[in-house]
Amino acid sequence: MANVRDLSISERAALSPREAREYFRQGQVVPTAGFSAGYAQANLIIVPQALAFEVLLFAQRNPKSCPILGVLEAGQVSNELLAGGDIRTDVPKYVVYENGEKVAEPTDLAEYWREDLVTFIVGCSFTFEAALIEAGISVAHIDQDVNVPMYKTTRRSVSAGSMSGPMVVSMRPIPASQVADAVRITSRYPAVHGAPVHIGNPEELGITDLGKPDFGDAVQIPEGCIPVFWACGVTPQAAVMESRPALAIGHAPGHMLITDVKDTFYQVP
Amino acid sequence: MANVRDLSISERAALSPREAREYFRQGQVVPTAGFSAGYAQANLIIVPQALAFEVLLFAQRNPKSCPILGVLEAGQVSNELLAGGDIRTDVPKYVVYENGEKVAEPTDLAEYWREDLVTFIVGCSFTFEAALIEAGISVAHIDQDVNVPMYKTTRRSVSAGSMSGPMVVSMRPIPASQVADAVRITSRYPAVHGAPVHIGNPEELGITDLGKPDFGDAVQIPEGCIPVFWACGVTPQAAVMESRPALAIGHAPGHMLITDVKDTFYQVP
Repeated sequence: MANVRDLSISERAALSPREAREYFRQGQVVPTAGFSAGYAQANLIIVPQALAFEVLLFAQRNPKSCPILGVLEAGQVSNELLAGGDIRTDVPKYVVYENGEKVAEPTDLAEYWREDLVTFIVGCSFTFEAALIEAGISVAHIDQDVNVPMYKTTRRSVSAGSMSGPMVVSMRPIPASQVADAVRITSRYPAVHGAPVHIGNPEELGITDLGKPDFGDAVQIPEGCIPVFWACGVTPQAAVMESRPALAIGHAPGHMLITDVKDTFYQVP
Repeated sequence: MANVRDLSISERAALSPREAREYFRQGQVVPTAGFSAGYAQANLIIVPQALAFEVLLFAQRNPKSCPILGVLEAGQVSNELLAGGDIRTDVPKYVVYENGEKVAEPTDLAEYWREDLVTFIVGCSFTFEAALIEAGISVAHIDQDVNVPMYKTTRRSVSAGSMSGPMVVSMRPIPASQVADAVRITSRYPAVHGAPVHIGNPEELGITDLGKPDFGDAVQIPEGCIPVFWACGVTPQAAVMESRPALAIGHAPGHMLITDVKDTFYQVP
């Protein structure tokens, strides 16, 4: 099997979701933006059954940042979003939190899996990037081959039980003349974060330096571009870091589950 | 305080949600269709904390029949949907289920309340009836002053843990020339069941006699009208009747919580 990092942008885009998951199942690690064009990507938040109600309620109360695409009940490791796959191995990289502290970033969950773990599969804005590109809007982090930049904001999520924390956003620099198109296009994908939550003026979100994201990589902001912010599915992990449950597992930001569901399935008229 | 049953159609429509809840808090009982025009009405499903995850997951997996408007966590009896209200008293009539059997239909929950009960407030199609009427589409059960007819169907809900059961629908007869308008208008309210799930041919839903609804009252079907079916928020109660948890509480079908939220809040473009 080739090294996934050696694949060109177009080779990554052409992989089927199953092929992409196969690479990651082997332990290969790379951010997944640009992979399997046309297929939805997803965030994970995995918690013990005892915390599952609070996490699902948190998602219900924060639908922009935590749109639920599917839930694997305790004991389940796959469903129709990843047919033939295994949630414990098919994501490039995971983050394990104990008491809110990151304790490991494994490439599979063999060491951490328990039968009482419930997996929430949460929409990701990578899903609408193919639609942006098709409309002639370039996506900086794909062009620059880095992870998307993500920031904790000063905007609070609505809390649920013990779960509370800041809203996390992803940022894409968009030429001023195309910002309206980016809004129009992404609003058609409410299940994968939908329209931006903020356009321009990062300081109003409490972001003082775009060059220092809390997750992912900084991107170079091309001349004439406005920073545009979308709610991000890392938000539940930010709540975990603040609320400090005994155990929680997420994907490594930007290293998503690639699902078998077409982007267009999540498109509304 | 007057008898709520003596109020005319227009007097009922003119009540504020708070005034309407006040009537019901006194123990007065009447179906709530037509009350507080312009304000959203809601279904209830109340379960012990231990079952709360399964109920919320059931709702997440069945968004057409179980659109969640709000959740009162264990110990909470009010929130912004019923400001100054109390979920234990402000609904005209409740249904208490033990092991899936209806054991009581009290007008308040004084006798049944426990601190570990979690309340799910679920959208109701009464919410869009004002919009139908405004568009010149009459609503038969309001005109006939009876409860809306509801039917268990042969269509199954997606199950979640132990929660499984049939989809329940409400039915409104609509003149053939206005069915398309009814679809267009109600699709703008996805949070309160949205577009119909079925138009005409009741037998395909397993409904053999429209004159014998499973919940509510039969309506006379005016000449030239087509039966139109919307997913109904009694669906979780049908799952409770089948799944038989030790305790669950619902509203009496058609006897809804009248919320402080305007219908238009749930309208999409």
